[in-house]
Amino acid sequence: LKDEDETLILEMLEELHAADVADILETLSSQQRRKLIELGSKGFDPEVLSEVEGEAQDDLYEHMPNDLIADAVTELDTDDAVYVIEELGDEDREEVLRALASDDRVAIEESLSYPEDSAGRLMQRDLVSVPEFWTVGQTIDYLRSENSNIPEDFYDIFVVDPGHRVVGTVPLSRVMSSKRAQTIISIMNDDPHIVDASAEQEEVAYQFTKYHLISTAVVDSAKRLVGVITVDDVVDVIEESAEADILALAGVREESGLNESFIEIVKGRFTWLFINLGTAILASVVIGLFEATIEQMVALAVLMPIVASMGGNAGTQTMTVAVRAIATKELNASNAVRILNRELMAALLNGGILALLSGLVAMIWFKSVLLGSVFAAALIVNMFFAGLSGLLIPMTLHKLDIDPAIASSVFVTTITDVIGFFAFLGLAAIFLF
Amino acid sequence: LKDEDETLILEMLEELHAADVADILETLSSQQRRKLIELGSKGFDPEVLSEVEGEAQDDLYEHMPNDLIADAVTELDTDDAVYVIEELGDEDREEVLRALASDDRVAIEESLSYPEDSAGRLMQRDLVSVPEFWTVGQTIDYLRSENSNIPEDFYDIFVVDPGHRVVGTVPLSRVMSSKRAQTIISIMNDDPHIVDASAEQEEVAYQFTKYHLISTAVVDSAKRLVGVITVDDVVDVIEESAEADILALAGVREESGLNESFIEIVKGRFTWLFINLGTAILASVVIGLFEATIEQMVALAVLMPIVASMGGNAGTQTMTVAVRAIATKELNASNAVRILNRELMAALLNGGILALLSGLVAMIWFKSVLLGSVFAAALIVNMFFAGLSGLLIPMTLHKLDIDPAIASSVFVTTITDVIGFFAFLGLAAIFLF
Repeated sequence: LKDEDETLILEMLEELHAADVADILETLSSQQRRKLIELGSKGFDPEVLSEVEGEAQDDLYEHMPNDLIADAVTELDTDDAVYVIEELGDEDREEVLRALASDDRVAIEESLSYPEDSAGRLMQRDLVSVPEFWTVGQTIDYLRSENSNIPEDFYDIFVVDPGHRVVGTVPLSRVMSSKRAQTIISIMNDDPHIVDASAEQEEVAYQFTKYHLISTAVVDSAKRLVGVITVDDVVDVIEESAEADILALAGVREESGLNESFIEIVKGRFTWLFINLGTAILASVVIGLFEATIEQMVALAVLMPIVASMGGNAGTQTMTVAVRAIATKELNASNAVRILNRELMAALLNGGILALLSGLVAMIWFKSVLLGSVFAAALIVNMFFAGLSGLLIPMTLHKLDIDPAIASSVFVTTITDVIGFFAFLGLAAIFLF
Repeated sequence: LKDEDETLILEMLEELHAADVADILETLSSQQRRKLIELGSKGFDPEVLSEVEGEAQDDLYEHMPNDLIADAVTELDTDDAVYVIEELGDEDREEVLRALASDDRVAIEESLSYPEDSAGRLMQRDLVSVPEFWTVGQTIDYLRSENSNIPEDFYDIFVVDPGHRVVGTVPLSRVMSSKRAQTIISIMNDDPHIVDASAEQEEVAYQFTKYHLISTAVVDSAKRLVGVITVDDVVDVIEESAEADILALAGVREESGLNESFIEIVKGRFTWLFINLGTAILASVVIGLFEATIEQMVALAVLMPIVASMGGNAGTQTMTVAVRAIATKELNASNAVRILNRELMAALLNGGILALLSGLVAMIWFKSVLLGSVFAAALIVNMFFAGLSGLLIPMTLHKLDIDPAIASSVFVTTITDVIGFFAFLGLAAIFLF
């Protein structure tokens, strides 16, 4: 991307989808990006502001004049506008809010009054609601009336009572295929999915996935209809929460991604590495207890990392399955005992086979039947505790309302390290000398 | 759940959403489950068959009579029907296919002719397509005509030329808000998103996420419209592929979940543990090279797991970020060098701070400045290679068309173990004696 021909670039940007422009901004180096923002921010599709992420987002919001941001926010759907406003710096946010028309400002401020990561932040306020006594014909005429509150894209029509409480929903396709004279009430689903504005976004995503929803009504604490959440926003939530779990399991802080700034990356990983240093030292202390034993037989030092590593891997496997099963609500109190039994049996079976194999290797390598047997026994013990802790730790953390994806790894690997070294060196101290 | 009152249970099942019935089947023990299937399979909503997963799915398909399965398949949308047929055993599949009406059978067999995990398997064949020259009024009349090819739920209308090639799409909401006399061609998007039936499902999911699609046309190799994919099916693909990445990174084979059978679980984890045993032995061989050095100073055996473990963690962090960035197409050749520089700087900075800290601990613990320095130096070296391999290994595997989520961990942890032990014990051998 050269920046010689300004008009050519501007033309190109206009033809591209907002998501593609955002991708370009994210791929550029920060110098090139600033040039493009100076050059092109007037011509940007407003949706570029809600599509762009990470460092590119910071740069765009910082270097784009606030009045242009305000113009763009006015064009956006409430949910996207709220997202942009959330991400602005404090000063910019106030300036942009002041520059908005009062009805837009009130709508955004109302959404912002709901907690972060709640349904209220995700919802779009423009929606189509009709009274119960209307017919299909009246509904179609209303939709053709060019009322400015009618959103461009919508998938369900909400049927409300005089108190603006949702009594049913009608998918658009059903309105379309019904005769004009039919009443709305006769074709509506009278048991609609409704989400509370204060509900957590992950709970909303779970409902959408489970019941294959396309859109759902959002109601306030008095059960009045205040907005609608559509599936395209939920797709982002699903991706982000799976992403957060993956990164958290690897000890990378949630916000980190490729577009994060350097300092954020270093900080986001340091915490985990620092905690891991502590647990690694703990494991070393256990080894230190057996210094005299190792001095008598250095082969122990050669083999001991295998016991710890195998336990760590087995524990991580069980833990990962458990963390995901908790996240998708597959694992709960009613099947926990059954699953625990199964995990422990699997750990013992795999542990048994691998202990046999590696015990043989140790026996041949160090020409000692006794060393091989102690090694195999320690491996089985550690893999059993790996299975046990891999399942019980995420479940316990979940009960204590701590995100199992973030905290489980530390505990599981500490336990498998400590038990691994302790079992192997302890058994060696008892049986080998 | 007691099974005393049969009719009560049947009534309850009828009122529940198919997804909830599937959840109940999955939570029951296999004995209770079979009883419920015997009792209730006549009353099941056909969608229960496409919602249920894992062991419960196997049980349901096995114990439900094939003629009832065929009845259910007839009721399902093509995509769900194809999913059920795919999962049946070979014999049952043929029997069910034979029991279907010929048009249903042909539709399902055509979908099955596309490769597994392709768009063709995911698509629904019932859709609404109209010729270019129709008006909004003609379209609405057609939708009211109770034609059996019109699906119950649809979100976009596809505009086709006489060769049945897609020339545009119109969202339903736009049809609804347009006057009867307007031509369809005047309100359509003339640059619609189209997906090839042979495209991979993950690519389809990427398009849906990026462009916030609700439905997209699927075309065959001659560009003729053959089906439609809706976002609710894509949500499943997104969840499954994030899930597969999480599990693969932890060394659990893709198919495994809580509802997998015992033998599947043991097998799905054994491979990884077996490979890990090999790499752990490799690391032990490295330690074995320095047996004489360790004999001179057992403190080395106490400290060496810390070096390996810190490198492993740092490598896993970088690797996980890289694997996800490759999956979401954020990391590519154009920004690889920039990202590599950043990762290495982060590794050196975090490595430097942690080496200082842990070097001090080692110094005080073992009262040796030299040992502390060697330990710190080895830690920095290992964390540098952790950052390097954490990024380069997933990228190389991706270039070689190997799924980085499955294979990266083995290489990264092997490298950090081997380099960790080698650097620490090697430096110790040189400088301490």
